[in-house]
Amino acid sequence: MNKVSGQSKTIQNPKSKIRNQPIGIFDSGVGGLTVYRALHAHLPNEHFIYLGDTARVPYGTKSLATVERYAIENSQFLASRGIKLLVVACNTASALALPRIRENIGIETIGVIGPGARKAVSITREKNENPNIGVIATEATVSSNAYAKAIKRASEKAEVVQTACPLFVPLAEEGWTKEAETFSIAKKYLQKIVEANVNALVLGCTHYPILRDVIQKTVGENVTLIDSGEATAEEVFQLLDEKNLANETLPKRASERRLCDDLDHFYVTDAAERFARVAERFLGAKPAKLEAVEVFGIDKLKDN
Amino acid sequence: MNKVSGQSKTIQNPKSKIRNQPIGIFDSGVGGLTVYRALHAHLPNEHFIYLGDTARVPYGTKSLATVERYAIENSQFLASRGIKLLVVACNTASALALPRIRENIGIETIGVIGPGARKAVSITREKNENPNIGVIATEATVSSNAYAKAIKRASEKAEVVQTACPLFVPLAEEGWTKEAETFSIAKKYLQKIVEANVNALVLGCTHYPILRDVIQKTVGENVTLIDSGEATAEEVFQLLDEKNLANETLPKRASERRLCDDLDHFYVTDAAERFARVAERFLGAKPAKLEAVEVFGIDKLKDN
Repeated sequence: MNKVSGQSKTIQNPKSKIRNQPIGIFDSGVGGLTVYRALHAHLPNEHFIYLGDTARVPYGTKSLATVERYAIENSQFLASRGIKLLVVACNTASALALPRIRENIGIETIGVIGPGARKAVSITREKNENPNIGVIATEATVSSNAYAKAIKRASEKAEVVQTACPLFVPLAEEGWTKEAETFSIAKKYLQKIVEANVNALVLGCTHYPILRDVIQKTVGENVTLIDSGEATAEEVFQLLDEKNLANETLPKRASERRLCDDLDHFYVTDAAERFARVAERFLGAKPAKLEAVEVFGIDKLKDN
Repeated sequence: MNKVSGQSKTIQNPKSKIRNQPIGIFDSGVGGLTVYRALHAHLPNEHFIYLGDTARVPYGTKSLATVERYAIENSQFLASRGIKLLVVACNTASALALPRIRENIGIETIGVIGPGARKAVSITREKNENPNIGVIATEATVSSNAYAKAIKRASEKAEVVQTACPLFVPLAEEGWTKEAETFSIAKKYLQKIVEANVNALVLGCTHYPILRDVIQKTVGENVTLIDSGEATAEEVFQLLDEKNLANETLPKRASERRLCDDLDHFYVTDAAERFARVAERFLGAKPAKLEAVEVFGIDKLKDN
């Protein structure tokens, strides 16, 4: 089995084999677990490989060149594990690095920006309103204008107001989801959004769904919150169907699947224990399979 | 000059030449500029090379193994630039990686933990009080117990109370030095310190001096705040004197030196523009010499 000619290699990878490969997900750290949760719920017949780049988190304050490099290294690692589709769960990496990732790996790749933007526009249409959409995200995602551009692509007449909320990530990681300080900081950050009278607000960072209650109370019940991870899971479902890539041979029935069960494999670049702790808080379960790996300089070492 | 035999190499490196080499400083990012400022003020006859690992900041939530690796890569980079002494400005790297750094580079190395701890003990002695010392730092520094151990080494009967303040770094970087939310968060974090009735409080993270006013008002005027960077600069001054390593040939007089002037060289691993902006806010001047460099996998590439 190890010694295969070019020809037998082709025979080894028919469509049916590709269909049974896992879906790869990467994030800068733990935040992407909210995207994994959404994918798992919408696609109980699929299995997943998740990579959290916990050694280099966060991406949101870093430069384009650095986010691109990290994103490519993460993608190459997952590609080397044999995946049929790549989901870039990290908003910052989706905003800054999607074209370079696609150049570097020959695998269907989907980010969270496009799905989040399209969902926001369709929700406002369903409500028969003109799309007036707020976006909250990291500094790097806001500066990239990626959401604003994607929303305009979905609806030319959409109005977009964006703002960065740098303290939301550490507040979510501290678990301060009900504290008065969090409400006070949210009021400050979201003032611009409230004044713009938006009808939908995109949670453009994987950590923000954890502060969902605080955000909803601050902007008011009339504003629909869009979780980009949820929107992405819906598009992945469609994509697998269109491309005839849905898994057909998973050894468990959909009703038997559990979050973090032994069909899903988790990798982190650092601090696996901390990751397991946060996973339990976010998902109610610790990963059955969790490994620490190195992805640094994968491309560089290859050149030597 | 490039082709030198082993012998002429030795002649090229007499004590006088070593004395004229710069002092190396590294930090996980911009916070170490507060340590650079202190060194510059105490040692106007020295020149400095500063490395900020902005591509991998922060270190305070990462594991021992990862912080060690990053610290060694940074130290090797500075050693390759020809420094006579290394100052580890980052508290987390000082707490976790000092022994491994010393093993890996044959250069006198000083961290910020020891000096901060000794200064705290000597201050309480000057006030004729039993050392009852508070320490605030990152999660990793607190977990390492490095300050507590160093304080106990300086005074066996010292009492130490420690607490991590994870939101202080993003608050400092947001520039929220006067906001009500910062005071409210400080009150929450420092409650344990206030209840312990400490007489000195070590600011065990390079960012914390930026929130000095908030911290002082929260713990009360009777508590002496110890800036580990300041304490380190005082010890470096003594060390250069003892080892006969003080520079004697700087092309500018002490009175002509300015922070960030062209005698000091700054390197960052990412986002040089952002670094320059923060440097101006912290120091009132932008670095005259600032370069982006790669330090990743320095040791790994060497093995190939």
